[in-house]
Amino acid sequence: MKLLAAIDSFKGSATSKELNQAVLEGWGEAEQKINQPIADGGEGTAEAIYATLGGEWRTLSCPDLLFRKKECRYLLTQKENRKLAIIESTEVIGLDLLTRPTDQTIRLASSFGLGELIKDALNQFVDEIIVTLGGSGCSDGGLGLLQSLGAKLNGVTEGNPLLTIKELDLSQLMKIDQTVTIAADVTNPYTGEQGATQMFGKQKGGSPETLACLEEQAEKIVEQIKTKTAIDLNQLAGSGAAGGIGGALAIVGAEMKSGFTLVSELVDLEAKIKESELIVTGEGRIDQQTIHGKVPYGVALLAKKHGKKIVAICGSREKELGELASVLPSVFSIQTGPISLEKALDHQETLESARLLSQAISGIFR
Amino acid sequence: MKLLAAIDSFKGSATSKELNQAVLEGWGEAEQKINQPIADGGEGTAEAIYATLGGEWRTLSCPDLLFRKKECRYLLTQKENRKLAIIESTEVIGLDLLTRPTDQTIRLASSFGLGELIKDALNQFVDEIIVTLGGSGCSDGGLGLLQSLGAKLNGVTEGNPLLTIKELDLSQLMKIDQTVTIAADVTNPYTGEQGATQMFGKQKGGSPETLACLEEQAEKIVEQIKTKTAIDLNQLAGSGAAGGIGGALAIVGAEMKSGFTLVSELVDLEAKIKESELIVTGEGRIDQQTIHGKVPYGVALLAKKHGKKIVAICGSREKELGELASVLPSVFSIQTGPISLEKALDHQETLESARLLSQAISGIFR
Repeated sequence: MKLLAAIDSFKGSATSKELNQAVLEGWGEAEQKINQPIADGGEGTAEAIYATLGGEWRTLSCPDLLFRKKECRYLLTQKENRKLAIIESTEVIGLDLLTRPTDQTIRLASSFGLGELIKDALNQFVDEIIVTLGGSGCSDGGLGLLQSLGAKLNGVTEGNPLLTIKELDLSQLMKIDQTVTIAADVTNPYTGEQGATQMFGKQKGGSPETLACLEEQAEKIVEQIKTKTAIDLNQLAGSGAAGGIGGALAIVGAEMKSGFTLVSELVDLEAKIKESELIVTGEGRIDQQTIHGKVPYGVALLAKKHGKKIVAICGSREKELGELASVLPSVFSIQTGPISLEKALDHQETLESARLLSQAISGIFR
Repeated sequence: MKLLAAIDSFKGSATSKELNQAVLEGWGEAEQKINQPIADGGEGTAEAIYATLGGEWRTLSCPDLLFRKKECRYLLTQKENRKLAIIESTEVIGLDLLTRPTDQTIRLASSFGLGELIKDALNQFVDEIIVTLGGSGCSDGGLGLLQSLGAKLNGVTEGNPLLTIKELDLSQLMKIDQTVTIAADVTNPYTGEQGATQMFGKQKGGSPETLACLEEQAEKIVEQIKTKTAIDLNQLAGSGAAGGIGGALAIVGAEMKSGFTLVSELVDLEAKIKESELIVTGEGRIDQQTIHGKVPYGVALLAKKHGKKIVAICGSREKELGELASVLPSVFSIQTGPISLEKALDHQETLESARLLSQAISGIFR
């Protein structure tokens, strides 16, 4: 049996590489075992790429989304002679950096720090900067980021510049020659019912009044940008990603890609699937949302394309998996019995249970 | 795929037949599906046999182990023209009939009612009586049962006759011409360190003083029986089963069999395994004790003998399965994620989760 493990990290419990390792260990003997760390643009993306391409972590002190000083890191690596920077936006503006998202935090939070990381990366002689969105805690239309890159935000009096901006002046905005790629899986526009504020503002703590204000202001920004750059953010799928950072980065020429596609290309996942017989994938939670760009779905599609057997492991699964079941019929929870959520999230417990599940599955193949 | 499901009941959650059904449903298409209810002589044994052989349930009012009136039932059935009675001793003297085993209950409890059920069965023109031991709540050396069958217990002043008996008079003991078979999986002798009292008396609520008294009295009974019948209970494996009922039934000519072997022969399990390709077995809990006569181990041995693939499902599994792993490498818990014990024991939850696990396993074979 030629075995490939490509499991997404179980958030808060174990990394992709550790889970792959546990599964490969549990399998016992095999003709070939490949540990392929993988991610979908969410937490652990830079880690997964680092595990395959190597590189070095660059650390700098940066203002986080609430303008607190934070040591932030990003990855400098290389692929076929192209120098790459991989920046996870959660490192500097992540929702998880807040104790609890509230109306106060959404009114304070800015994407400024992410711009600082991007500027730093530009000074490292890279050919491409990859920025993962998703998991952000701010909803500022990406204005903080644009400010960091040279734009002037006239009239701003609060932390979240979108609340009070009168005019966006792009005349001093940096010109970026390097390729900038956004890893994001949402296609939401900048404003409107499916826009950044109305879709994601509530989970970032916004009160109805704050969200109404942000939406009204964002509409004005759309108009200003349309006049100044001929870009209509509301016609641009994904401009509403990360509270509008998708749109802001589009102004400096960034292109959007699905996070999973981006990572799988960087790590040559498809070629490795081709030379394997059985693929084990997985994620902390597998449910009907998994088909929206998550690792298990992406891996399953590649496995199907090449006619390979695939099984998925998870911490917990939804009972009805809907459409996912047709490409991924074998979804197993690693739990060995009734267990509390807290215990199930434990690092060692997770890896041990993954190892045991792999052992059980391998038994079927012997 | 020719599929056979032979899963023991999950105690308190679902019957063998229901679990088999859930697994066969979850599997989807198959060339052949056999639902084979199975048991190991524990709870659900008569039910499993009934599901295969049919028959009728006979109900009668009987004194339970605390001499309370209870409606007790046993099965009358037939196999190849032999009429059988299947009596589960837990029906009348089960530990589960006590709110809580205490020193008081062990001093009161008698196996008398089980003798009443056996006598009733003898009047039904059966060729063989099968009595499952295991799960009993009394520890009376089987004296209550012998009393019901005609023995005189001289000197008895308490509910549990073993405490105060002076002399066991077997002169009026019934002679039983029919075959009596005991289904039991313990090989403990009547007395001694491995005997009924010292091994099982504590879990039946006995205080050290009570247990010491029972042990001393049991030694005298061994001597009296040796003198009267030439049977040495301490040389008889299993005479300590069910607090000594194993020994008492030996006096009336009963033979011991492993519960699993007995049931599997009655339901022709081996023949059905031979005509299948994949066997799904299981039990509520699978652990290192499973090799001691439990269903998953018995089924796994038969599957191995005939070179069939086997997987086991359970509510919970021990992480290290020891020796079991060599015959049963594929043990899966049905849990779909972190879950409380209470929720996991729910009837519908159990069956739904079993169905989903079967679906996941079947995906591997497609």
